[in-house]
Amino acid sequence: MTPMKPIRVGLLGFGIVGSGVAEILERNAEEIERRAGRRIEVARIAVRDLDKPREHIGPTISVIDDPYEIVLDPSIDIVCELIGGTEIARDLVTEAIAQGKSVITANKALLALHGNEIFAAASERGVMIAFEAAVAGGVPIIKALREGLTGNRIEWLAGIINGTTNYILSEMRDKGLSFAAALADAQALGYAEADPTFDIEGIDAAHKATLLASIAFGIPVQFERAHVEGISNLAAEDIAYAEKLGYRIKLLGIARRGTRGIELRVHPTLVPEKRLIASVEGAMNAVMVKGDFVGQTLYYGKGAGKQATASAVVADLVDVTRMMTADPQNRVPHLAFQPGSLADSPILSSGEFETAFYLRMRVADEPGVLADITRILADTEVSIGALLQREAEADEPSTDIILLTHRTIEHRIDTAIRRIEALATVLSKVIRIRLEDLV
Amino acid sequence: MTPMKPIRVGLLGFGIVGSGVAEILERNAEEIERRAGRRIEVARIAVRDLDKPREHIGPTISVIDDPYEIVLDPSIDIVCELIGGTEIARDLVTEAIAQGKSVITANKALLALHGNEIFAAASERGVMIAFEAAVAGGVPIIKALREGLTGNRIEWLAGIINGTTNYILSEMRDKGLSFAAALADAQALGYAEADPTFDIEGIDAAHKATLLASIAFGIPVQFERAHVEGISNLAAEDIAYAEKLGYRIKLLGIARRGTRGIELRVHPTLVPEKRLIASVEGAMNAVMVKGDFVGQTLYYGKGAGKQATASAVVADLVDVTRMMTADPQNRVPHLAFQPGSLADSPILSSGEFETAFYLRMRVADEPGVLADITRILADTEVSIGALLQREAEADEPSTDIILLTHRTIEHRIDTAIRRIEALATVLSKVIRIRLEDLV
Repeated sequence: MTPMKPIRVGLLGFGIVGSGVAEILERNAEEIERRAGRRIEVARIAVRDLDKPREHIGPTISVIDDPYEIVLDPSIDIVCELIGGTEIARDLVTEAIAQGKSVITANKALLALHGNEIFAAASERGVMIAFEAAVAGGVPIIKALREGLTGNRIEWLAGIINGTTNYILSEMRDKGLSFAAALADAQALGYAEADPTFDIEGIDAAHKATLLASIAFGIPVQFERAHVEGISNLAAEDIAYAEKLGYRIKLLGIARRGTRGIELRVHPTLVPEKRLIASVEGAMNAVMVKGDFVGQTLYYGKGAGKQATASAVVADLVDVTRMMTADPQNRVPHLAFQPGSLADSPILSSGEFETAFYLRMRVADEPGVLADITRILADTEVSIGALLQREAEADEPSTDIILLTHRTIEHRIDTAIRRIEALATVLSKVIRIRLEDLV
Repeated sequence: MTPMKPIRVGLLGFGIVGSGVAEILERNAEEIERRAGRRIEVARIAVRDLDKPREHIGPTISVIDDPYEIVLDPSIDIVCELIGGTEIARDLVTEAIAQGKSVITANKALLALHGNEIFAAASERGVMIAFEAAVAGGVPIIKALREGLTGNRIEWLAGIINGTTNYILSEMRDKGLSFAAALADAQALGYAEADPTFDIEGIDAAHKATLLASIAFGIPVQFERAHVEGISNLAAEDIAYAEKLGYRIKLLGIARRGTRGIELRVHPTLVPEKRLIASVEGAMNAVMVKGDFVGQTLYYGKGAGKQATASAVVADLVDVTRMMTADPQNRVPHLAFQPGSLADSPILSSGEFETAFYLRMRVADEPGVLADITRILADTEVSIGALLQREAEADEPSTDIILLTHRTIEHRIDTAIRRIEALATVLSKVIRIRLEDLV
């Protein structure tokens, strides 16, 4: 079989997200081809300033300063609109659709304001508009709602969908800061823009909530009907009082099917601290969705940033590529990768695993025991991360030692345990449980 | 446009999941048709015992006791294999594929053991095998890996993918129970089977981890290479010691790309208590996925039970129906529902929202203030859920009152606040923040 020619992607804009997309397509080219069934390449890039030096632009990529040239180029298969704003972007997307090209965008403002006309034009022309990156960055929440929960009548959804405000609220609670002080910190660390209005007044979250509501309930995009309150008036003492009562305050985007109609709202909200979403801290995003059959589900991850947003754009690129390439009966391969391109990576046996360990043993309560144990661990190249020794009772001849090790190859632990169990002062088998930091 | 004839579904098996599927397709028929672009109907059901009375079987549905009759019936478009087991199920699925039918299954054991041959047969015959329900019930984790994270090289995933063992571990920790006692509780409550071996020895989790590993890394299904340890030897004291050190013990299914190969393992694992997954309690499921670009994402929800599992089966039915029905260029509608079938449900204005409230006000520290406030709330039909009154300092003439209300229509609160602010003893504006229990 001759390989199909690569999908040629045109990037409109090469800022944070655009360069992230180029980086992924370059670094994970092979993995992506195995999944999509076809190579995906950045062919042309439109930038504002041609003189600015840039990374991840290979020698075969043409860089120009007129985005319309890309939109009108018949050799370009898919256009990624990464310019932002709602004027030029709207015009470019409309023209790309007219040219019969599928469009991928991360532009929530554009879709929240002009989505109805854009989706209608795309349906009429038979092209796709993909926008997974527009809500919650790399978290595939659009896909979950459009495809994963389609058996359900969605009752409500509630999301932390703006990282800046969640970071500020986390700082206010953690450090007892005022809103102004937490905002200044967020700006210093790059989590908030110099003009933070869109984030702190809830407008960005409302754009996203508007899109989620449409997909959840099957209604047209209606940003103008969203009720929007930000966090700039929130007092530190309310965060403290809420905590005393067992609640956290989060800026939530909420879409809810009520008895009299649909509620679409963004506002600071008290949430019981034991809900999983209450533990979502810093710049992270999470969306809860309640379906009538599935119950509550939650989707969590990074909601912004170069790599996470670009991850969603590339997932959309794979989606469109599969649509343009694959057997229509098997657009998505059963095992995610094309049948012919499964890897034969070996699966390791347990002695070769790399993990940390919890070890518990009963030892005689006498001097030198711990020194013997730690020497064995050092000899087998296992290093210790934490140690807990239970104080022996007055008349008790033995006690428990608990050790946490750092990551190691599993067979080293097994060797160490055999030697430890051979010590006369160790009175029990060594209990061994694996430990994963999950970072 | 004449409506297309309904998709005819054949259910093999009508136990817990089968009856859940019939219930969803009946109750959410209209919503599902708006999403899928076509009606989806249960046409035939194969049961073991024809005499057992059953719910959700409409008068037009034919019930028989020979599943092969359904598999061979040319009028059946999609087969749902919900019988379980790996012998008859394997034969039925293979025959359905040979007949050119797409198959939906929740049977993780079948796919973990015989997936390679089944997927190969399906690819050759050009039909789909959909199995979202096989892992983590209603949580669309298969879709997230197959489609949502396709730009990433997956580094690892770790999941709580067996509700029974997570329930037992939660009980052991919460109540300080032994494994045996917690298992007995779980059996009494229906969270564990009479013969719990598959769950407590980690086999069920290993079936699921095997499928996740294949999809994450693009490798053939290799259950025989999975390393499996259950929780039956776990001592209550290790859970307690782990907690002292800041960890929870969870049964995790882990698939990790190491330097020397792939690790595929299920075992009790210490997890730092501040990780979101450590807070997943009871019978709930959650899967963390680490991608090289997206970073960590997490997917959470009910992993078992009639409704959650059936939710995933129906999502797969919608998937296959869209594939058989929709314009190949627009298999998934932009806004989840077919363009022609968006609803015109009204979006409410804020006075009509239904939510609970946190109210804070500064009041004179004198008798009768609270009585006045609570009378106003009662008059406006707002009921109080909790109250916090800060103790005034010795020489302080005023103090704070914080109230949490129950859910109410928002304009009632606004009326109440106007009246409260008019009281001479209320010295500040009333701070009002919405509260959502998210249940």
